[in-house]
Amino acid sequence: MIRTGLVSGIRPTGELHIGNYYGALKGLVELQERYDARYFIADVHSLTTHPKPDGLRGLVVETARNYLAAGLDPERCTLYAQSSVAAEVCELHAYLSMVMPLGELLRVPTFKDKAKRHPDNVNYGLVGYPVLMAADIFLVRTELVMVGEDQLVHLEVARAIARRFNQLYGDLLPEPQPLVGNAARIPSLSGQGKMSKSDDPAACIGLGDDERTVEEKTRRALSDPLRAYRHQPGHPTEDGCNVFRLHTFFTGEAEREEIAASCCEARIGCIDCKKRLAERLSGIVEPFRRRKGSIGEADALDALRLGRDKAKEAAGRTIADVRRAIGLQML
Amino acid sequence: MIRTGLVSGIRPTGELHIGNYYGALKGLVELQERYDARYFIADVHSLTTHPKPDGLRGLVVETARNYLAAGLDPERCTLYAQSSVAAEVCELHAYLSMVMPLGELLRVPTFKDKAKRHPDNVNYGLVGYPVLMAADIFLVRTELVMVGEDQLVHLEVARAIARRFNQLYGDLLPEPQPLVGNAARIPSLSGQGKMSKSDDPAACIGLGDDERTVEEKTRRALSDPLRAYRHQPGHPTEDGCNVFRLHTFFTGEAEREEIAASCCEARIGCIDCKKRLAERLSGIVEPFRRRKGSIGEADALDALRLGRDKAKEAAGRTIADVRRAIGLQML
Repeated sequence: MIRTGLVSGIRPTGELHIGNYYGALKGLVELQERYDARYFIADVHSLTTHPKPDGLRGLVVETARNYLAAGLDPERCTLYAQSSVAAEVCELHAYLSMVMPLGELLRVPTFKDKAKRHPDNVNYGLVGYPVLMAADIFLVRTELVMVGEDQLVHLEVARAIARRFNQLYGDLLPEPQPLVGNAARIPSLSGQGKMSKSDDPAACIGLGDDERTVEEKTRRALSDPLRAYRHQPGHPTEDGCNVFRLHTFFTGEAEREEIAASCCEARIGCIDCKKRLAERLSGIVEPFRRRKGSIGEADALDALRLGRDKAKEAAGRTIADVRRAIGLQML
Repeated sequence: MIRTGLVSGIRPTGELHIGNYYGALKGLVELQERYDARYFIADVHSLTTHPKPDGLRGLVVETARNYLAAGLDPERCTLYAQSSVAAEVCELHAYLSMVMPLGELLRVPTFKDKAKRHPDNVNYGLVGYPVLMAADIFLVRTELVMVGEDQLVHLEVARAIARRFNQLYGDLLPEPQPLVGNAARIPSLSGQGKMSKSDDPAACIGLGDDERTVEEKTRRALSDPLRAYRHQPGHPTEDGCNVFRLHTFFTGEAEREEIAASCCEARIGCIDCKKRLAERLSGIVEPFRRRKGSIGEADALDALRLGRDKAKEAAGRTIADVRRAIGLQML
């Protein structure tokens, strides 16, 4: 059975938290079963906003370890560093940049937003970010692109580029369809926004946290602000109690209903309820941590090299086709 | 003796005229003696303004034949198609684009001019033209860049990029110095502006024209508008007679003085004077035409492949150094 091609980019970030697990890792692992999935760790992209990355290679290896620990199978999918096809992706980017109107790029909301926030770092590459992303997509010529909601506008740029390019040079680039991840946004333990290591590490369950740390952090989580004492009944709803809200992500329905009933009758206190949440959280973090512990840098490199070879083959075919189409025949 | 490195781009144009011979070919041939010269035929650049080139490869081969006929020695200099290092130049371009502020590119006069003249083709690649040119330069890391006056502003962009890049990543890219060609602007036979095949082919001596054609075209050249009859004395000055002006480029001083004296006394007519100019013109065109006739497509390809190998070696070293500097270490 030929599986439909799918591509997705992965930000090279070192330590992940349980929000990332639900938001990114789990989804990509599931998709490798249904699709011919190509996942690239976007190390070249990271240069558009961080021109001087510290230990970028280390981050790439760490990212690969995370995804392998989450269950990515380097034989089943293609997991590669974007820099492994740097020459190819940059060459395709240059050709695509010649069919993409500048005006449309300047109107892309994510660019306008970044330009506003970092007015001192509006470099030429930044406005071309969607073109580089289009090159990532077209290099492997998949039919589907897994993107977050915030990337949909970039995918529209890629689709526009495909149409223009094909109009000029013949039907070469498939107009990719989006597959939008319905990534759960896990709330912070503090109740303030979503979980984020940079915003509040103490309110964020890291995928590297041990059981004690998970319990400790969860113990300090915001629960029901209206329930000051153990004997008071709580308000176990998504809006009424942040800990209950977290249960909705990690605890099964039956147990959740039981907790809610006990809470409403003050049969269970916040400390016990948080303990149960901590157990659920550790039930995800611990196996992940163990699996990651068994995956060394060498394993990650092996996987990335396997991916590199597969990606380079596809990329080489695309570049050859594109060069021929635009009339740049090699000597 | 180590010769100083020099790089220059060559526009891939098929048939040249005698103005190009003086304006471009001759200069580059002379420079190969004094410098370690790298000349690339800018086929990738041509895509920024002509997205659908017809027979681009043929033009590249033809351009190589022209330069070889003019005396370029592929052993002494490095003559290569830009597309031979397309992957390398585009990759470097992408990295450079991340240190180059967009605002400065938008203010480059040549961009503003092109954008004004072709408002329907202001693509992202067009604004990045100076960045691609910088990549051409830095790929071979020469100290000198041979440019026309109109390219000086692009060289300033390249210099700014080198400074920023080196500041971020260490002293890697030499800040290139311009070597401005004092290219003679050969006037048109019609007296209207400079010689240009597209403006007026009949008023333009092609480097492929045979002796009869050269004589024919020269016979119809504009001469002295105030000398209507043979018996009238002429005005053999640069402003007084277009044919005399052309003599100043192609005829030696002694003969020119003799012509001027005869003309002032009406001892020589315009027809004879033009015949003598035609002889001088053919004295350049004929040997060129013969040499070009002896250089086949295969010879041009041999030369370009030799150049490709030399250029790829230098480019590979640069890319490896740049990747290391910015932290993109390959797996």
